[in-house]
Amino acid sequence: MGAPHAVESEEQLMAAASVIKKAGACILRGGAFKPRTSPFSFQGLEEAGLELLAQARERFGIPVVTEVVDSHEVGLVLKYADILQVGARNMQNFALLTEIGKSKHPVILKRGLSATVTEWLTAADYILAEGNNQVILCERGIRTFEDSTRFSLDVGSIPVVKKFSHLPLIVDPSHAAGHYSLVPAMAKAVVAAGVDGLLIEVHPNPKKALVDGLQSLSPSDFARLMEELSPIAKSIGRYI
Amino acid sequence: MGAPHAVESEEQLMAAASVIKKAGACILRGGAFKPRTSPFSFQGLEEAGLELLAQARERFGIPVVTEVVDSHEVGLVLKYADILQVGARNMQNFALLTEIGKSKHPVILKRGLSATVTEWLTAADYILAEGNNQVILCERGIRTFEDSTRFSLDVGSIPVVKKFSHLPLIVDPSHAAGHYSLVPAMAKAVVAAGVDGLLIEVHPNPKKALVDGLQSLSPSDFARLMEELSPIAKSIGRYI
Amino acid sequence: MGAPHAVESEEQLMAAASVIKKAGACILRGGAFKPRTSPFSFQGLEEAGLELLAQARERFGIPVVTEVVDSHEVGLVLKYADILQVGARNMQNFALLTEIGKSKHPVILKRGLSATVTEWLTAADYILAEGNNQVILCERGIRTFEDSTRFSLDVGSIPVVKKFSHLPLIVDPSHAAGHYSLVPAMAKAVVAAGVDGLLIEVHPNPKKALVDGLQSLSPSDFARLMEELSPIAKSIGRYI
Amino acid sequence: MGAPHAVESEEQLMAAASVIKKAGACILRGGAFKPRTSPFSFQGLEEAGLELLAQARERFGIPVVTEVVDSHEVGLVLKYADILQVGARNMQNFALLTEIGKSKHPVILKRGLSATVTEWLTAADYILAEGNNQVILCERGIRTFEDSTRFSLDVGSIPVVKKFSHLPLIVDPSHAAGHYSLVPAMAKAVVAAGVDGLLIEVHPNPKKALVDGLQSLSPSDFARLMEELSPIAKSIGRYI
Repeated sequence: MGAPHAVESEEQLMAAASVIKKAGACILRGGAFKPRTSPFSFQGLEEAGLELLAQARERFGIPVVTEVVDSHEVGLVLKYADILQVGARNMQNFALLTEIGKSKHPVILKRGLSATVTEWLTAADYILAEGNNQVILCERGIRTFEDSTRFSLDVGSIPVVKKFSHLPLIVDPSHAAGHYSLVPAMAKAVVAAGVDGLLIEVHPNPKKALVDGLQSLSPSDFARLMEELSPIAKSIGRYI
Repeated sequence: MGAPHAVESEEQLMAAASVIKKAGACILRGGAFKPRTSPFSFQGLEEAGLELLAQARERFGIPVVTEVVDSHEVGLVLKYADILQVGARNMQNFALLTEIGKSKHPVILKRGLSATVTEWLTAADYILAEGNNQVILCERGIRTFEDSTRFSLDVGSIPVVKKFSHLPLIVDPSHAAGHYSLVPAMAKAVVAAGVDGLLIEVHPNPKKALVDGLQSLSPSDFARLMEELSPIAKSIGRYI
Repeated sequence: MGAPHAVESEEQLMAAASVIKKAGACILRGGAFKPRTSPFSFQGLEEAGLELLAQARERFGIPVVTEVVDSHEVGLVLKYADILQVGARNMQNFALLTEIGKSKHPVILKRGLSATVTEWLTAADYILAEGNNQVILCERGIRTFEDSTRFSLDVGSIPVVKKFSHLPLIVDPSHAAGHYSLVPAMAKAVVAAGVDGLLIEVHPNPKKALVDGLQSLSPSDFARLMEELSPIAKSIGRYI
Repeated sequence: MGAPHAVESEEQLMAAASVIKKAGACILRGGAFKPRTSPFSFQGLEEAGLELLAQARERFGIPVVTEVVDSHEVGLVLKYADILQVGARNMQNFALLTEIGKSKHPVILKRGLSATVTEWLTAADYILAEGNNQVILCERGIRTFEDSTRFSLDVGSIPVVKKFSHLPLIVDPSHAAGHYSLVPAMAKAVVAAGVDGLLIEVHPNPKKALVDGLQSLSPSDFARLMEELSPIAKSIGRYI
């Protein structure tokens, strides 16, 4: 999956989608509702952002993922998106999980930044218990004392999840790294450890991104990384 | 504030309210909606629990606090409660915070278990930004590697919050301790450090509690603690 | 105990000792060997520092504590000091602990910055197992994600240690706070929680300290804090 | 590097060395001095263990690594070992680091379990500052709240160290995992991320190990892992 962090404008989104498609990524992620630490930061384009995502889907023929932050907006978001995303801050927003469970649509459930693997799998149970088994788990780093990366990517959680759960597992190395130069090594690591997918932030022009530009790959870096990942995947018997 | 963790039954709630009132606590807290890690745990009595709380308020003449977990239930909960509570898991549920901000009602905002003080104060901004300045901050322990207590009560956050914010600050030592025998020392500590209130779990019969019995004080332990806290408060120039 | 962090010069040490003595502290702590993160930082005055400490002891009639960092320097340090200190970095330097155990001299064992209470008590066993039961435990904060204080003072460890060990327990709020303005609230908290002593950094002129000046109290702040602590101690049935 | 955690007996060590040699590992690690949390646990065979290691070196023609825990034993250990190891607990035992610096012998410096990358590189400075530049850094997991693995392997530290230091970096996935079933995925991850070597625990009969048996690979599992790692290394342009 290729992923600009936030939908900023039509131009930015179409450029990102084009890059992602060419490099072989199979899903487009874009944030229309952005839950931000402060109420005074850019909050996303909301419904206008969803519409742009739907246009990109049609034009490039790739499914789109977007975050839903309120249990009462599940229906609205599903009018435009193929896959829902529950962010780390909402991993234990049980009202939201239950509503998504009822929707029966595929969902990416990000791990809370201080959630244990057990709490994460138990949060997934809220969706599964409603009869929706299309849950994709997404590791995105945990909060520790180490400050040279934004979060500590918990690579040990990969074999633990594979041992205790049948759910597919993807990883978002961009959030954990916090800096584009650290993303490729972390992406290679988790592919070798056996994850089922990656969520990597790409921006047509990272320096001009409104949100999280520093952790976004440029189109050429993204394309190069995709090439480098292919032999690693093959070496553990998988294909990209 | 005295506080049974969850409203279980009329009998349990009235017994708790009576104990709390006698010991001099000024507010009754009870959970009607209980966000639990697993969907298969006791989830609270929901609206029936709210009605019981309202009855206790009338009978004992003390205001009640209860948790709200969904932005669309703010109105419902306010029909019965005097003060809302946002739990640690929902500290960054921005849709919920915004709705509470609009309600203009007093709210207790618990610190997320891995939130920095800065993130906590910034979450409070979501409520303040809607024009609701009746926000009470509540420290309840952070997640660390230490496992002899359920959470590590961050006593250092008290002078930090007092330095950077004008909002009142209370502490919930019961959740942090995880065991009733550790609650009194932690309660005394935070009173001496200058907090504006305490949220202590009390259960008429802790051994029979459906939720968190081990961390609840018995009525007699609660009454003794209230007596012991009084001279500490006085020694820093405050009164209980 | 009053405590300049490092012995810098005769003048600085005597001024500090005088202040501490007047304010009613009963022990003088000073570092002669300073274990520093970088080899290029000030490492202490070493044996010359020990001699200054011994002079202060004689002049002011108060016992002195100083840190020992190498198992082969235990004898040397004991020529000058009354009480040894094992720093947080050396909590699991088992060769050092064993040597101190054999010396039969009193020792302050600081908690490692990521040690559990269990590991800390087990490290104390290395001293006790050699027949030396004069061990004083010292809590100084643990490493967590919170960055508004230097370390998170684990106030919950106080009742836990009191429950599982008979050893005396003191607290060093200065290291945990990292800033003088936060020290008083933290000191009051731990006295109310029942600790047996405090280790507070004092510097005759904090702004000119070579090490950790920002966390040191000035003489007048130290004197005021000692006065404020007295009624809190009395309120839990103890005396300073 | 293949590595039985502790030297237990001649038979055990020779069996392990044979396995490791056959599977293509180039270094034998064995602990003669074992720093253990409790004084009542198995502490290693000490000098007798060193002699066994030297015999294994001669018989199988592979260099040996062993831990040194006291600055005054550096000379003794160097009589038998080719490479020294400083354990996580001693990462900031500056007396030990300085002595190793003076010895001019190669040393593996393990990261402290709550050390930041910066503190780790700065600890290495204590060795480098004495003119010994043969320092190998070893990541072995950090302490976090997650308890499904023994430590959280900080895969993000790999590109960070590669960015800020020219020192070679190896990883010990066995300690981080705490369970043999998690070791292969973690080993693959760090090879793909670009580390220069691995330190993997192997025991001829893990179920009978005196120390850390659960995290040791059996000889056949070790051989299989070595085979699986080879194509991953090749895919990033390196060889095992």
